[in-house]
Amino acid sequence: MSKKIIYLDHNATAPVRAGIKEAVLPYLNSAFGNPSSIHALGREAKRDLERAREQVAGFIGAPLTNVFFTSGGTESNNLAILGAARFAKKKGKGNHLITTAVEHDAVLTTCKYLEQNEDFELTVLPVDQYGMITVDQVVEALKDNTILVSVMMANNEIGTFLPIKEIGTILREKDILFHTDAVQAMNTYDVNVSQLPVDLLSLSGHKIGALKGIGALYVRSQVRLHPLQHGGEQEMTLRSGTENLIGAVSLGKACELTAQDKKEKRDQLKQLRDCLWKGIQSSIEDVSVNGAPEARLINTLSVSFKGAEGEAILLALDMAGVAASSGSACASGSVESSHVLEAIGLPEDLAENTVRFSLGYSTTQEEIDHVLEILPQLISRIRLANG
Amino acid sequence: MSKKIIYLDHNATAPVRAGIKEAVLPYLNSAFGNPSSIHALGREAKRDLERAREQVAGFIGAPLTNVFFTSGGTESNNLAILGAARFAKKKGKGNHLITTAVEHDAVLTTCKYLEQNEDFELTVLPVDQYGMITVDQVVEALKDNTILVSVMMANNEIGTFLPIKEIGTILREKDILFHTDAVQAMNTYDVNVSQLPVDLLSLSGHKIGALKGIGALYVRSQVRLHPLQHGGEQEMTLRSGTENLIGAVSLGKACELTAQDKKEKRDQLKQLRDCLWKGIQSSIEDVSVNGAPEARLINTLSVSFKGAEGEAILLALDMAGVAASSGSACASGSVESSHVLEAIGLPEDLAENTVRFSLGYSTTQEEIDHVLEILPQLISRIRLANG
Repeated sequence: MSKKIIYLDHNATAPVRAGIKEAVLPYLNSAFGNPSSIHALGREAKRDLERAREQVAGFIGAPLTNVFFTSGGTESNNLAILGAARFAKKKGKGNHLITTAVEHDAVLTTCKYLEQNEDFELTVLPVDQYGMITVDQVVEALKDNTILVSVMMANNEIGTFLPIKEIGTILREKDILFHTDAVQAMNTYDVNVSQLPVDLLSLSGHKIGALKGIGALYVRSQVRLHPLQHGGEQEMTLRSGTENLIGAVSLGKACELTAQDKKEKRDQLKQLRDCLWKGIQSSIEDVSVNGAPEARLINTLSVSFKGAEGEAILLALDMAGVAASSGSACASGSVESSHVLEAIGLPEDLAENTVRFSLGYSTTQEEIDHVLEILPQLISRIRLANG
Repeated sequence: MSKKIIYLDHNATAPVRAGIKEAVLPYLNSAFGNPSSIHALGREAKRDLERAREQVAGFIGAPLTNVFFTSGGTESNNLAILGAARFAKKKGKGNHLITTAVEHDAVLTTCKYLEQNEDFELTVLPVDQYGMITVDQVVEALKDNTILVSVMMANNEIGTFLPIKEIGTILREKDILFHTDAVQAMNTYDVNVSQLPVDLLSLSGHKIGALKGIGALYVRSQVRLHPLQHGGEQEMTLRSGTENLIGAVSLGKACELTAQDKKEKRDQLKQLRDCLWKGIQSSIEDVSVNGAPEARLINTLSVSFKGAEGEAILLALDMAGVAASSGSACASGSVESSHVLEAIGLPEDLAENTVRFSLGYSTTQEEIDHVLEILPQLISRIRLANG
């Protein structure tokens, strides 16, 4: 990073938090033990791994033994869905899955893989203009052979919260497994599994300032999964492979730090996000915000600038030292229009005119002011060029 | 690590190499971009990821586009086997797999999972007293429905090299996929896919001094796999999930450094290992070495001390500041006797009397001398106690 960048792409990945570097430095030096080794170095590694697990468990109000480390949010989602679906099908419990049209690809593509390759049935629930589904939609989609429902906590592109608690309550009565992808919510929203009727919940490290390559899956007691990968039986046989110790330590520490920010800084974060939107609205014509007006992630602002190509806006912002994104960064360098914007019924041209600003706890008023200073002219120029 | 430890457990995990810390520090600071983001930070991350891929590809003589990052050796083995087997079965090419009795659990358990859960047939080839198989054994085991053979390059517990080149040559003629787990060989042996008839080859980061949580899989052109996890289509859709950038950079750098050591330091490494064995042999009665006499990893020494419990030896060594192991550290804290020692026909009591010393490029003559100084008395004491 050669110059100071105004980073408004926290939903793609967050900067490594202050405090993480110090926490992980020992694992770049002498603390290199394998947690499975029985000698002193191994025991120290095991102790540090379990301390990290405690921090993650504490962050989501889970018992220690229900938290399993993975290589990231994508693996957590895959392990939850593939693992639960394969186990249930093998036991003859059914083969029908339900999810929504606005899930992250790590959920949606995974469900479709099962439908196309392993004889599962899949219902993808449509959403309304805000990206919402109703509990009734889920209930109506249930069949005798339904084994798993996966609904995200909050959408990564437009920020809309989905009615997890209500859905989970009904599914628990009916004894149907419920998974939620909490990857995008965990940074700003209090995710507490002791108060949420979920069986499986996915977390990611790099979205809260830990390293890339680490995540976790909460698995409620008694819920059984087929592992995705087999071997040395680490993570209580659910996830074999030498543990990513430096990653786990970074995730534990980031959980601890994020819990503090969520208390102290979230009002300020929401205020900055709202300030950005008000500024855009008052200085630029023909703009609209995507996602639920109220029940929306406090750091997320998806804006459609009618008549201005999103890609052109991003490139111009990039030239001006501002990092934002179109849809999800996870669609690997893709500038295709987003399945989420399509699902909320945004016309294709407006979807292509969309930019996602996602703020973080380190975002400042000065940064927002600067963006608001350059954005109107930048949009005008692009609209002129687009003709 | 509170005191200086003599570390002779490199096959479990290697110390983070000098030079790795400096290489990865930027990713704990400002270089936090998501390689899938199109802005400057994302593009820088992508560039660094691809540079790391070049280093790994160069290390094994592979084209850049045939190297895929994974979360480690276990995932690489699982992706190779599950991915190739599921793809071939779906295409109606067959459902028979062949492997050996001395594979790492990440191969053996994975093959057994397919046998038990997905209607595959499995042949596990027995080995001789050295842990060897013959090419004829493989040929005899082939059936019309054989789709994949997985044979490790060198065994992680006893060090024996298996006849990869000969097996691969025959399988290529017959158009049957061939996977090899090169995880334990890559540190000391020249692994070059341009000279080896393999279709899939697994690598691990932490065995050569990179971080834990990163590995790679070589996939020959035209070989198709089902992904293990689905989502944002990273790694050319073979391995979705935000890339572990810091891990990939550490692996690239470790490959570069290891290539140098393999040239410069391997004679010295073999000499130290042989010195350890000669010293043990000349000072302690009733000892035997496991594995092939000659075709064996130059850093690995598996010794059975008749009448002395391996676990007791390890604990006493640990107290004396020496780290070694019984079988594979990957069997998660397990002190069960090893499936490898069982496969070579070692009687159960002798298997339980076994210690694996695995040296690294940083091992010194002084360290070996010190171990040889304390070991005879230590073994005597344990034999007396066990006696």
